[in-house]
Amino acid sequence: MPPTDRIRDHAGQGATTVAAHRARRRLRADQARQLADLLRRQLLTDGFENGTLPHESTLATDYRATRNTVREALDLLRAEGLVERFPGVGTVVVARKYPHGLDHLMGLAETLREHGTVTNEVRTMGPAPAPTPVADRLHLPPGTDVLYIERLRRLNGLPLSLDLTYIPLALGTLDIGTALLGADLENTDVFRLLETITGRRLGHAEITLEAVNADTHSAAVLEAPRGSAVLMLERLTHLADGRPVDLEFIRFRGDRITMSGLLHRS
Amino acid sequence: MPPTDRIRDHAGQGATTVAAHRARRRLRADQARQLADLLRRQLLTDGFENGTLPHESTLATDYRATRNTVREALDLLRAEGLVERFPGVGTVVVARKYPHGLDHLMGLAETLREHGTVTNEVRTMGPAPAPTPVADRLHLPPGTDVLYIERLRRLNGLPLSLDLTYIPLALGTLDIGTALLGADLENTDVFRLLETITGRRLGHAEITLEAVNADTHSAAVLEAPRGSAVLMLERLTHLADGRPVDLEFIRFRGDRITMSGLLHRS
Repeated sequence: MPPTDRIRDHAGQGATTVAAHRARRRLRADQARQLADLLRRQLLTDGFENGTLPHESTLATDYRATRNTVREALDLLRAEGLVERFPGVGTVVVARKYPHGLDHLMGLAETLREHGTVTNEVRTMGPAPAPTPVADRLHLPPGTDVLYIERLRRLNGLPLSLDLTYIPLALGTLDIGTALLGADLENTDVFRLLETITGRRLGHAEITLEAVNADTHSAAVLEAPRGSAVLMLERLTHLADGRPVDLEFIRFRGDRITMSGLLHRS
Repeated sequence: MPPTDRIRDHAGQGATTVAAHRARRRLRADQARQLADLLRRQLLTDGFENGTLPHESTLATDYRATRNTVREALDLLRAEGLVERFPGVGTVVVARKYPHGLDHLMGLAETLREHGTVTNEVRTMGPAPAPTPVADRLHLPPGTDVLYIERLRRLNGLPLSLDLTYIPLALGTLDIGTALLGADLENTDVFRLLETITGRRLGHAEITLEAVNADTHSAAVLEAPRGSAVLMLERLTHLADGRPVDLEFIRFRGDRITMSGLLHRS
């Protein structure tokens, strides 16, 4: 008798079987997520020797999970692009996420210094009238020209982020725009250039972080799959004297960046 | 002559036309992203009267953009689930993102206090042997039982996050597990319960933020579309005396939460 007939003939018992099956599947999905989160942490912190995960049966024993749960957990990490299974080799870590500091205000090259070289492809650069929301935040009259810069930023050649930047052309009598237009933006953080040009330290920044799905065009620029998760950072940076100097909208590839920091209770 | 023939007959000129067309499309996509980022900020901070965006032609004038660019920018925000277009009404803000503080260590109910009521559906709760990576971080011998809690957290009834939590059953001679099992977890932050039970303040937490695409099951639990962007927070919280007390893996719906804070240069 095929299973559906059994359900029809013994409705009560069949329904229980279906419900029990669903409950098992839900439980396994929950346990797979739980395990995937633990493995993710380990692979992000280089916790696996030679970048190879232990065998499924070892993971099953270590985590008191069934083989099916282990497989489902590995599937979750594979869907995130973090691991890949190779026949005869096993499950291997194929992606690396780089830790962006969240405790201090730092440029990308600064925060990733120990991980390699940041280079910037300047896609657009030039003066443009500041739209009202930009002018307001930079404390400028609406329509004042600001320097608009669009950069694709790479770490060791791999696309990491797409940054849209608005900077006042001048601060008081100081001409920032001309200096930035002539600067080595390909190889230098805007933060560092601003400190050099103004002769002042940066002070603080208001930041907002969001997770969004990349639109088709942004995904193409970042060489990421369409719809992939992007860590979006909006950041308004001020000089140490409080004047706003740099408004940025940054899309980090979700599979390449984590933000790490310390929070205190009071 | 159809366009394709023109390209074939005058290859050089046709290729230029195609290239120019592509360049225009790329430029428009870049400008649409730029505009969408400015509008996103405004709608997240309640910047539009009555939650309705200005007419396309007004936006085009205000932002010195073409109508096509404005439409494409609104399409991006619609794809993110932030706005919807209603005939005869215009483009309306349909989603709200709530700001989660990033400056101090706070529970969800604490940080969203002014935005409504947080309730928690406890999906799983009970003692379980700590897997090695959990035991290590909580400074326990591997295999020691810890309290595992899984909660779906809602703000005013809307799913916000799915939290997996590991807590030591005891700290020294203090029994935390039994107290938590009997506590009102449906209506109270774990942070607040821990401070009440231990009689001590929490101290600091190490956090890591990532953007990931929700897997099918997590998306279903969060009532979000499959693959939607999730803000993933891993947080190890310590008591003020430094002892680790709470390890959490939190998936926030990307369309409902932003993380906001201040960073300082030094």
